[in-house]
Amino acid sequence: MTVHHATVKVHSQLHKPQFHDVTGDVVAAVAASGIAMGTVNVYSQHTTCSVLIQEEAMDQTLDGVELLLQDMANYLERIAPTCRHEGQYLHPGPKHLAYAEAHGEEGWWSLNTDAHLRSVLLGRSETIPVLDGKPELGEFGRVYFADFDGVRQRDRTVHFTVIGE
Amino acid sequence: MTVHHATVKVHSQLHKPQFHDVTGDVVAAVAASGIAMGTVNVYSQHTTCSVLIQEEAMDQTLDGVELLLQDMANYLERIAPTCRHEGQYLHPGPKHLAYAEAHGEEGWWSLNTDAHLRSVLLGRSETIPVLDGKPELGEFGRVYFADFDGVRQRDRTVHFTVIGE
Amino acid sequence: MTVHHATVKVHSQLHKPQFHDVTGDVVAAVAASGIAMGTVNVYSQHTTCSVLIQEEAMDQTLDGVELLLQDMANYLERIAPTCRHEGQYLHPGPKHLAYAEAHGEEGWWSLNTDAHLRSVLLGRSETIPVLDGKPELGEFGRVYFADFDGVRQRDRTVHFTVIGE
Repeated sequence: MTVHHATVKVHSQLHKPQFHDVTGDVVAAVAASGIAMGTVNVYSQHTTCSVLIQEEAMDQTLDGVELLLQDMANYLERIAPTCRHEGQYLHPGPKHLAYAEAHGEEGWWSLNTDAHLRSVLLGRSETIPVLDGKPELGEFGRVYFADFDGVRQRDRTVHFTVIGE
Repeated sequence: MTVHHATVKVHSQLHKPQFHDVTGDVVAAVAASGIAMGTVNVYSQHTTCSVLIQEEAMDQTLDGVELLLQDMANYLERIAPTCRHEGQYLHPGPKHLAYAEAHGEEGWWSLNTDAHLRSVLLGRSETIPVLDGKPELGEFGRVYFADFDGVRQRDRTVHFTVIGE
Repeated sequence: MTVHHATVKVHSQLHKPQFHDVTGDVVAAVAASGIAMGTVNVYSQHTTCSVLIQEEAMDQTLDGVELLLQDMANYLERIAPTCRHEGQYLHPGPKHLAYAEAHGEEGWWSLNTDAHLRSVLLGRSETIPVLDGKPELGEFGRVYFADFDGVRQRDRTVHFTVIGE
């Protein structure tokens, strides 16, 4: 039995939900671990992001989002609408804004409450079986790192922890 | 420390959301592993299915769905309504449909977008502590494999990965 | 490689969704395990509770709920509204109520269907990487045990399972 940890950086450029396909990174982390059977946990420590598994849709929207992911973003928009004005959500409150200002952050960077809510709804990680040295994703399954924080460009870290033998 | 992997096949017959109680299979996989303490991951590689834990409801609907699961299906119907016509969702797009046709699939098999969306919302797996050689589910907790793909009958595989000592 | 299991008890007092910050307990369980690298699974066997990760909001509502968690409770109220009368949901059915009565439970204790539904939606556990002997939560990430069962006061158990080396 052994454990192997790896990370990869992704860069969120667009000012809207962005989905990074990290399937190749999951496969690479499992291969690097030398583990034939066990599990791989794919995780985001960012509280406005999620890790999810979805089928590759093949077709994309005009600005490059896979159709299944855009269909998902559309229902998330109904559950936790994009924050468009102060007071739409309770958060951010005055203590949070004062803290942000004292640490060199712009106040409007905190108008990302929708992203915090979507992140919890879809969950922070997925744990995938490893068989024959590969993550078990089926024929068309892909692992996506979802960045729901549309208020600014961000560098993000994705964690892979492989456990097994 | 050791790792043990097992699978079970289930068959989804009904043309609507179907819930397979796999609690006995989880218990059996943990027992077969010989592991007394650790975790068991219950996982679906199918992108239109989920694994979930719920209390046994005892009562059922007229067609055999436990009441708590039907209450759940009812709110999923509001979030991601059953696909009833082309164009209801963005997916499936023309590339996907051409690919399906080229691989011997009927086009209407792809009108399962609602199932893809529900699968991500509820998640692909659960990881459950193993104590004294048994999954810790409380007195009435049951593990269900949910198949949301109502467009056709399908054979499905459920994965169990037990890690511990 | 080793595995370490610990539990902590929390007491839910308020007759509404309550969120217990168990971050310190996660950190303590990882430290007690002596494990430097691996994963920690935080789990609820209670079918009306969830485990989730969210940023600390700093500000609170008038009755002490962090603003991000109250924003979350507000959209959960739209998806699975608090049960206010019999017949609002299919569950509980007559067999369940007869069983509860036969086991000394009050019938109205079963009017917690909304809590069962929210528990599945947000999930029963989170699995977090352990690095340098600490759970990887980012600067402001907190682990919350959510108790959605507002019909009565309850003692609850939270499970921590650390695996690694």
